[in-house]
Amino acid sequence: MGALTVTFEDYGIAAPAEAGETILEVATRAGVGIATYCGGHGICCQCQVVVTAGQVQPKHEAHWQQWPTPDGKGIRVLACQSVVTEDITVKVPIGSRAEDFVVHQMAPLKANLVDLSRFEPLSPLAQQFVLDLPKPTLEDSVTDMDRLRRELLHRETKLEPITIDLPVLRELPQALRENDFQVAVAVSDIGLARKISAIRPPAAADSSLGLAIDVGTSTVAVQLVDLDNGQVIGRAIRRNGQIAYGEDVISRIVWTQKSPEQLQNMHRAIIDTLNQLFSYLYNEYNATPDEVIAASVAGNATMINFLLRIDASPIRRSPHTPPATEIPVFTAEQLGLNIHPQGAVCVCHPAVSGFVGGDITAGVVATGMHEAEELALLVDVGTNGEIVAGNKDWLICASCSAGPAFEGVGVEAAMPATAGAVTNFDYNRDRDAVDYQTIGNQPPRGIAGSGLVEMIASLVEAEVIDRTGNINADFPSGRLQRSDDELGFVLFNADETAIGEPIIIYQHDIENLLRSKAAVLAAINVLLGKLALAPADIEHVYLAGAFGAGLNVDKAVAIGLLPDIARERIEVVGDTALAGAYLTLMSRQAREQARATVKAMTYLDLSSDTDFMDEFIASNFIPHTDLTRFPSVST
Amino acid sequence: MGALTVTFEDYGIAAPAEAGETILEVATRAGVGIATYCGGHGICCQCQVVVTAGQVQPKHEAHWQQWPTPDGKGIRVLACQSVVTEDITVKVPIGSRAEDFVVHQMAPLKANLVDLSRFEPLSPLAQQFVLDLPKPTLEDSVTDMDRLRRELLHRETKLEPITIDLPVLRELPQALRENDFQVAVAVSDIGLARKISAIRPPAAADSSLGLAIDVGTSTVAVQLVDLDNGQVIGRAIRRNGQIAYGEDVISRIVWTQKSPEQLQNMHRAIIDTLNQLFSYLYNEYNATPDEVIAASVAGNATMINFLLRIDASPIRRSPHTPPATEIPVFTAEQLGLNIHPQGAVCVCHPAVSGFVGGDITAGVVATGMHEAEELALLVDVGTNGEIVAGNKDWLICASCSAGPAFEGVGVEAAMPATAGAVTNFDYNRDRDAVDYQTIGNQPPRGIAGSGLVEMIASLVEAEVIDRTGNINADFPSGRLQRSDDELGFVLFNADETAIGEPIIIYQHDIENLLRSKAAVLAAINVLLGKLALAPADIEHVYLAGAFGAGLNVDKAVAIGLLPDIARERIEVVGDTALAGAYLTLMSRQAREQARATVKAMTYLDLSSDTDFMDEFIASNFIPHTDLTRFPSVST
Repeated sequence: MGALTVTFEDYGIAAPAEAGETILEVATRAGVGIATYCGGHGICCQCQVVVTAGQVQPKHEAHWQQWPTPDGKGIRVLACQSVVTEDITVKVPIGSRAEDFVVHQMAPLKANLVDLSRFEPLSPLAQQFVLDLPKPTLEDSVTDMDRLRRELLHRETKLEPITIDLPVLRELPQALRENDFQVAVAVSDIGLARKISAIRPPAAADSSLGLAIDVGTSTVAVQLVDLDNGQVIGRAIRRNGQIAYGEDVISRIVWTQKSPEQLQNMHRAIIDTLNQLFSYLYNEYNATPDEVIAASVAGNATMINFLLRIDASPIRRSPHTPPATEIPVFTAEQLGLNIHPQGAVCVCHPAVSGFVGGDITAGVVATGMHEAEELALLVDVGTNGEIVAGNKDWLICASCSAGPAFEGVGVEAAMPATAGAVTNFDYNRDRDAVDYQTIGNQPPRGIAGSGLVEMIASLVEAEVIDRTGNINADFPSGRLQRSDDELGFVLFNADETAIGEPIIIYQHDIENLLRSKAAVLAAINVLLGKLALAPADIEHVYLAGAFGAGLNVDKAVAIGLLPDIARERIEVVGDTALAGAYLTLMSRQAREQARATVKAMTYLDLSSDTDFMDEFIASNFIPHTDLTRFPSVST
Repeated sequence: MGALTVTFEDYGIAAPAEAGETILEVATRAGVGIATYCGGHGICCQCQVVVTAGQVQPKHEAHWQQWPTPDGKGIRVLACQSVVTEDITVKVPIGSRAEDFVVHQMAPLKANLVDLSRFEPLSPLAQQFVLDLPKPTLEDSVTDMDRLRRELLHRETKLEPITIDLPVLRELPQALRENDFQVAVAVSDIGLARKISAIRPPAAADSSLGLAIDVGTSTVAVQLVDLDNGQVIGRAIRRNGQIAYGEDVISRIVWTQKSPEQLQNMHRAIIDTLNQLFSYLYNEYNATPDEVIAASVAGNATMINFLLRIDASPIRRSPHTPPATEIPVFTAEQLGLNIHPQGAVCVCHPAVSGFVGGDITAGVVATGMHEAEELALLVDVGTNGEIVAGNKDWLICASCSAGPAFEGVGVEAAMPATAGAVTNFDYNRDRDAVDYQTIGNQPPRGIAGSGLVEMIASLVEAEVIDRTGNINADFPSGRLQRSDDELGFVLFNADETAIGEPIIIYQHDIENLLRSKAAVLAAINVLLGKLALAPADIEHVYLAGAFGAGLNVDKAVAIGLLPDIARERIEVVGDTALAGAYLTLMSRQAREQARATVKAMTYLDLSSDTDFMDEFIASNFIPHTDLTRFPSVST
């Protein structure tokens, strides 16, 4: 491949390209991070670049836009809508660079989800031991490996049996003798045994670090953790770079089926995203890749397949089976992750099925619902929505394609829950004004997930939109506006925002949000229906996903994202997948619980369920066509 | 490296060389097989090559020879004595090519050593299963991996737990779907678990083959085995290509310590030797590398270190510890062996110490002495000599540096036990004639190990040599001759041999042979002495090593290679290391016995033992200075 060349002049990268590819596709493969929220559909307009030499062709005339540049050199276009047909040179303005938008510190996880005291004593996925070994003598002539093993078992007998792989064994004789038999040894927990995974001078191994990773379809979150005590050193979150290849798992699978190279590109995109997050954390917290000796990953089955470069197409076809629920332990070297190449043990949370992945088993372990007497419901609102109901005796799960609207994809005004994102929103009709809060108290850049929920609730209450989601064309406010032949409502004027442009919600954005909430509500109701349970039977609802802790649960019920359950029973728990990845990073008991959870869970397939389709249509209303089901929601 | 170039014109290879290297060293590294029996010491004269362009310098003037060529183009020299100082071009005559000399079929192992009925039911290191799996449906939607696992456990429940590595998991979804869920699956036994190591179309996997391998210091032997039933398909034996870098383990370790590249070269030499043996077997028996899904290797600790490219220098230094007694399972890909790259499981026999290696634990398992009531002695006469005494209750072992004389290295007249080798030898003084037998009844090319023992015994009996090993300068025979300032005795005249030259034994050859036998006898006597045992207490002596089944045990006692034990108690058992490798290839029980044997064996270090030095000097006589210890040997 690569008949053509796209030169990214600010990056010094000359990337090979095929005729017909978009600039965004070429950039993503070449590791040039261009911001996109909409998945490359010409909607969010974040991916503006300047073509300074050569010509591009429009992908879809409907989404094609071009602007002159201030200095008159080249033209400004959307990278996702510009098709390459000849060699071109491209500048990526600072404001369009992905890294400038999405690598940020994120809020800590809820303390009750990551309470390690449930799992004491700690038994991390890998541990480091600093050893001062006796030197070999005629009286004590055991082998190097037995010398290590003896000392390790002296420290902790539960490490047995201890194995080693050939690459590390090769380093052993010299490592011991060059360091006068004083070495730092990393020992991985690989399930049936422990493995000596790295040996180095004690000075080179000040700390032993691990990574807890949530590979979401839209967003990837990472925590850097001190394995000795579980302390979280730093956090970072970023768009999944695969968004350039499709918004949801199905469109991405379709894309990879075109050729083996496309699967390789999809794989590269998530590896690059992870490595960018790791680099950010290393720089920010003064760490090095070699210090990282363990990684625990949670993600849905498709994300895990792409991460491991496994064909995911069987997940798309009935009966939607992934290649394996339990993924073998692997090394960073096998994937090209920028952590200790052979000395880090990497594991993935086991999945239940093609559409209930390791992110959900991680969530179950984090909430502890699998150990509780009381009946609980875990609702994970992501691009794929997953529901688990049950307690210590039984667990049943289902999934639905919610779409990425609440994660900010397909909604022009949306953004991740980072600095400048609106988390709370209340439109006051009388004052024709918005009361709001943003992260970091900065001027608004966009609306976070929790803000989107409150916005819908508020606009319904103010009758800007009706219960079917239609914007009222007669609403008496200057905020109402017509654009691209559809109605919009200005949430913030240009002079209020940090981006110098107004933030507007359009009719199609609202429809996307309603479809997302409808899928989740329908899945919950069908699942409860099959179990002959009423909402009142549920003692705890754990609302997980992209919202963040600031979500107003009253509003979530008001718009019909959740059934009408007593509000005090609803807990917004945030990223339970990341919480579970953290727990399994730190505890063998948690790892065993995750495996046991997979065996205990029953999967209910909604994809061919007619009840689900009926409920989905009824749930596209706010909160639902049958208002008797929402007695507590004032009309 | 590689300032100079040696061009091997018949091979089309331009090999980089350093000034000061010999042609033999350069050729070995470049994979050009040049025959050598003496280890590159200018003795055997097998390594003659023709330098057709450029000049070489003598390595040692004492060994330097050069001959004109028939066509007058270039000069004929010894590759091992020709130092490269400028770019040269070299022809390797057919008669000097290693492959023409040493790849041969070899004799089968003794049936009682490789009796699989001791280990039934068989449980080979890897098994192949041809599966016809039900296709996934909504009712039967288990994952690909669980689908495989379910069917395998249906065949054999003892396969549990079953694991898979990432590279094979990557192939799984496509392999199943492209072959309509009919696949051949290789399952390896990796100790704590079984692993699915290869998946392919059933048609591509007619047979599942394994390799039993004995990596000896001087000789490497391989058996190609049908894993389904243990049938031996073919056998081959070859000089260890590392001989170019030194005759014994110590000189080779010294050579590798010069630089990491030298260790890499040493490693390459054994890999090349093995791949040449494999190629021979594949061609001869119509097999392919992909059919080979398991390999079991026995060898001493140094050979195993070199095979795996592990620094062996700690074995040279007191207390002579190898990096590990138990070697991790590895893949062909990790070493570059020409068998199934990832789908073959490769294991090494565990070692007891730096000088009692996996070849000996293999020998113990093959003889069954570790399960017997009766006291037995295993004597393995190789370049390194190893002794094990014991029974089912205890095992004690020792080693000695015997030197490679009985393997034909350092004895000009010697050769491996292949076609044309003299296996039986009797000099009749009255007739001044030799009665002999050769392998294949061909004219003599050289003397095999068993022939060397009989020759010494016969020459002593005829008083050609005295009990100190000195050739009698006054012996009345035209066979006596003086050459290079030392005495020699013509065993075969030029007109009797296949090589057109006389076969002569020289004084220094006899001294090399005596040192070898003295080391073995001294080790046995010191070991028995420490145990307060007399030779009569030993119920069985297993004589292993390079001799082959034709050895006359009476002569072995007569020259003092073995103590004076009743002859019917002595069994010549041949290559017990290869026999053990074969058993562990075919049986998990044998693999477990090998591991248990290591734990049960006590190692006695003779290297600093003064009794050993005294015994060694006394044993340089024929049979021993103290003739009262050999009552049955007539004087």
